[in-house]
Amino acid sequence: MCRWQAYSGAKVRIEDVLFKAQHSLIDQSMLSRSAETPTNADGFGLGWYGTSALPGLFRSIRPAWNDFNLRDLAAQIESPLFLAHVRATSLATVQETNCHPFRYKQWLFVHNGEIFEVEKVRQELLMQIAPELFPHILGTTDSEVLFYLALTFGLERDPLGALARMAGCVESVAKRHGIAESLWMTLGLSDGETVYAVRYASDGDAPTLYHSRAIEDLARLNPDLKRLGPKARMVVSEPFGKLAKAWVAIPQASALCLRDGELEVVPFRPLAPEAKRTKAVGSTAGRSRSS
Amino acid sequence: MCRWQAYSGAKVRIEDVLFKAQHSLIDQSMLSRSAETPTNADGFGLGWYGTSALPGLFRSIRPAWNDFNLRDLAAQIESPLFLAHVRATSLATVQETNCHPFRYKQWLFVHNGEIFEVEKVRQELLMQIAPELFPHILGTTDSEVLFYLALTFGLERDPLGALARMAGCVESVAKRHGIAESLWMTLGLSDGETVYAVRYASDGDAPTLYHSRAIEDLARLNPDLKRLGPKARMVVSEPFGKLAKAWVAIPQASALCLRDGELEVVPFRPLAPEAKRTKAVGSTAGRSRSS
Amino acid sequence: MCRWQAYSGAKVRIEDVLFKAQHSLIDQSMLSRSAETPTNADGFGLGWYGTSALPGLFRSIRPAWNDFNLRDLAAQIESPLFLAHVRATSLATVQETNCHPFRYKQWLFVHNGEIFEVEKVRQELLMQIAPELFPHILGTTDSEVLFYLALTFGLERDPLGALARMAGCVESVAKRHGIAESLWMTLGLSDGETVYAVRYASDGDAPTLYHSRAIEDLARLNPDLKRLGPKARMVVSEPFGKLAKAWVAIPQASALCLRDGELEVVPFRPLAPEAKRTKAVGSTAGRSRSS
Amino acid sequence: MCRWQAYSGAKVRIEDVLFKAQHSLIDQSMLSRSAETPTNADGFGLGWYGTSALPGLFRSIRPAWNDFNLRDLAAQIESPLFLAHVRATSLATVQETNCHPFRYKQWLFVHNGEIFEVEKVRQELLMQIAPELFPHILGTTDSEVLFYLALTFGLERDPLGALARMAGCVESVAKRHGIAESLWMTLGLSDGETVYAVRYASDGDAPTLYHSRAIEDLARLNPDLKRLGPKARMVVSEPFGKLAKAWVAIPQASALCLRDGELEVVPFRPLAPEAKRTKAVGSTAGRSRSS
Repeated sequence: MCRWQAYSGAKVRIEDVLFKAQHSLIDQSMLSRSAETPTNADGFGLGWYGTSALPGLFRSIRPAWNDFNLRDLAAQIESPLFLAHVRATSLATVQETNCHPFRYKQWLFVHNGEIFEVEKVRQELLMQIAPELFPHILGTTDSEVLFYLALTFGLERDPLGALARMAGCVESVAKRHGIAESLWMTLGLSDGETVYAVRYASDGDAPTLYHSRAIEDLARLNPDLKRLGPKARMVVSEPFGKLAKAWVAIPQASALCLRDGELEVVPFRPLAPEAKRTKAVGSTAGRSRSS
Repeated sequence: MCRWQAYSGAKVRIEDVLFKAQHSLIDQSMLSRSAETPTNADGFGLGWYGTSALPGLFRSIRPAWNDFNLRDLAAQIESPLFLAHVRATSLATVQETNCHPFRYKQWLFVHNGEIFEVEKVRQELLMQIAPELFPHILGTTDSEVLFYLALTFGLERDPLGALARMAGCVESVAKRHGIAESLWMTLGLSDGETVYAVRYASDGDAPTLYHSRAIEDLARLNPDLKRLGPKARMVVSEPFGKLAKAWVAIPQASALCLRDGELEVVPFRPLAPEAKRTKAVGSTAGRSRSS
Repeated sequence: MCRWQAYSGAKVRIEDVLFKAQHSLIDQSMLSRSAETPTNADGFGLGWYGTSALPGLFRSIRPAWNDFNLRDLAAQIESPLFLAHVRATSLATVQETNCHPFRYKQWLFVHNGEIFEVEKVRQELLMQIAPELFPHILGTTDSEVLFYLALTFGLERDPLGALARMAGCVESVAKRHGIAESLWMTLGLSDGETVYAVRYASDGDAPTLYHSRAIEDLARLNPDLKRLGPKARMVVSEPFGKLAKAWVAIPQASALCLRDGELEVVPFRPLAPEAKRTKAVGSTAGRSRSS
Repeated sequence: MCRWQAYSGAKVRIEDVLFKAQHSLIDQSMLSRSAETPTNADGFGLGWYGTSALPGLFRSIRPAWNDFNLRDLAAQIESPLFLAHVRATSLATVQETNCHPFRYKQWLFVHNGEIFEVEKVRQELLMQIAPELFPHILGTTDSEVLFYLALTFGLERDPLGALARMAGCVESVAKRHGIAESLWMTLGLSDGETVYAVRYASDGDAPTLYHSRAIEDLARLNPDLKRLGPKARMVVSEPFGKLAKAWVAIPQASALCLRDGELEVVPFRPLAPEAKRTKAVGSTAGRSRSS
């Protein structure tokens, strides 16, 4: 169910990562190793940080492999940090606004996974989103809802805390609707300086997620990689490139912070919302709400 | 802001109405007489009743004038009742799911207009929609929200009543957010047998809406029209064809019912929601429904 | 490299064949059994004969599985004869005009295959096309060139003869450019009454092609199929549905004629163009030209 | 028929020119002052020179005003030289490969105009294109044919000479088909260092074309423009921005060279092809080339 990648390091021409690598994300749009969705051709998106205050965003419903514009942009743009995503969905609407990444101010967000039986909870989750954020929602995916919930829970100030509260909120609402184990996900997030990732599933069996080893280590196996600079790191749904040993699996129920080449993996646990708060829209009295 | 048409009568090849008439809806997608939006090229849609239980739907973000598929379909399909719409929007998302008509079971719905300052009320209006209907919303327009509100208020049983309650609900919520005059609209609606239309604005100055005179009358001026059959009628945002006199303006604050060639125009007045009901999602006490 | 299907028989709702069958053509757009192109998501097309003089045509660059419009059309349209195609191409341009079927008057044409090293011969082949036909070419595929060559060689009067002359012309021009074995193809063609198909490769190893057994036979295995009427037949790139035994492989270097339920398979051999005729464009002195 | 712009000068964020100016090219896609085509919504394209050896290219069939990707790219990309084009066509195919600019190596080419009765001459003109160039033609416009003819006539070595020979070739072929006055055009062309433009019509009445005055002059009227640097110049189909006096009409039958802020306007006259050369494809004697 979708594949994504995040790159952080020296400026690199995006096509070097997205197109020129073996089993690149573009190859994965045609045929990935995902058991659920070998083909991820229900659209793609690229968000990149560059010379502007805000990241750029290019999203399209085309299969990533046949979009000339994407090839061209990837050949033109150099960036020190970008997120790319190829989407697979089961008959949910395919439209640009449902492609990832989603963007809010300087934040980019990608998601691979689902909320089980989401049709039972989506309306209620949408109610939880802060009114001033709500008009920013352009699409109809659950992924975007997770993003805006996390923003509602203070993502801009405390990303990992907000993601934990978002996960707790979703599981809590879902439980009340009889869905015992609702979340199954990996997330990618950045503000242009730090890359955050989460690997979590309510049933303990989340989709795959990997990070690359330090360039220092990789360069012994492939000196060519030195051109990415000593701080280059990637976070990916599935390994690519020629070196299988380049990748380290991120454990279940973990979060990752990557900044300036320094990488840290910590446990990730949903934070259940505080009890006894009303759900009325418009009330700012905290957002971690329960019944 | 958009242009739409509804046809009801003998089976006709859709292209005869949509393409071959003078100043057809397709012409209006390029250049209409609308003061606000002369060009309506942010997508189009066609919903038609035919041989199936449910109406067909074809929506595209292409300008209607340059879509070969639409020309082809219109040349192939004969229908006794169809609704067509060409969209103009100000930077709101252009995607297929935001093109009209919207469809729910055998119902088709088109809208021309806006909800003023909708970003202040959209989340709250979405909360009003019945949970079992909510997953059917595929897009992000206000138009679709109006449709699903009306469905929530019993449109399937009492269309005009539900539309009145929907209008009352919107105006009420808007007023609470400081928007004195929120609605400005024409609506088209059908279940395949009856065509309903509404012309209403909170400030009394709604977009234009017309219906055609009886074929009996028109055929005196243009005998060629007899081929449409004695019951043929149209409801349109703006007049088209060669006979300016073919069209009768529908008055402000009116609703129209068209069935089997018989046409009735009645006053339309929003029905304010009942007081003292909470609007919590999930609570059936919160929706101002008809009995 | 692409998959296609042709249906001829009693009027059937297109979705029954295109969507509701097991391993339908839509399934094959995601994952077929083709060795070369398991995924055929570079666009699709549907051409159908119905109530109009000319066949209808709907083409889109969307992967066939995620296009709501196609699902809707297939649910609405009943047809006694239609051709459908899902495309796979290697970085050749993906655009509607490059999707099959191609249409000329009442003729529809689909192709699976290639002309080897076509970039060496395409310009010269285009020169061979009759000037009055040339403006009808809307796309840039080799498939469309084959169609218009065949039309130039008299397809409207003698379809199989024209296809043979087309194949002979292509092989001849290719040989002069040093390409010994240029053609590798299956073709589907119809005028609304007869379905023609060809399976041919210069090296004797053409893509797969099958036709269905008579309904009379199939109905013993699956009585449900009787609803397709006694004359129903299909020609397909790869078998689908539940009955593997429903399909008969069309031999290499063969052509098929299917009309009114009656099916004939004959040898197919390219007809080399006549010697000693100039290739000047504009000269009508025959079209089977050589150097 | 179409509108285009070329910018050359200090690096500028593309959106400043394309979106933020008054009556920008994007405004002109909705409503220009062109008599023939007020609306130019049959696609758009942007080609820009930047940090890569080759120019970037982004083309889309969307109306330029409603494409979020274009807005985003224009906000992200800074370039010292770019060409942008919004297309209007009469039912000719709308597809990305038919949007301008066209690109060949480092060359970008835009066109506004037509070849009268082109369907009579297109095949023959295509024959004139050098075989090694022919496979680079991705679309089906006459504009692209003009570009590839000019490349065939030596555009890479002598741009203005090649354009003159191309015009001469087209007029000559057209005359043989009974079309007395075939060309009606403005052209824009660049290799990333020089901008060339042509304004020419066989009947002496070509579409409009303007260049901007020197920044030195403009800055007296609007000091804000100094930020574009002293060498900034634009060539445009129709004036935009706040200063009507900023623009100088390029005379009929003229060509313009703009390099490093220096601008020269010279007469433009088609060069008739040399007589008595066969036009057989493959024969190098057949193309009226410069030496």
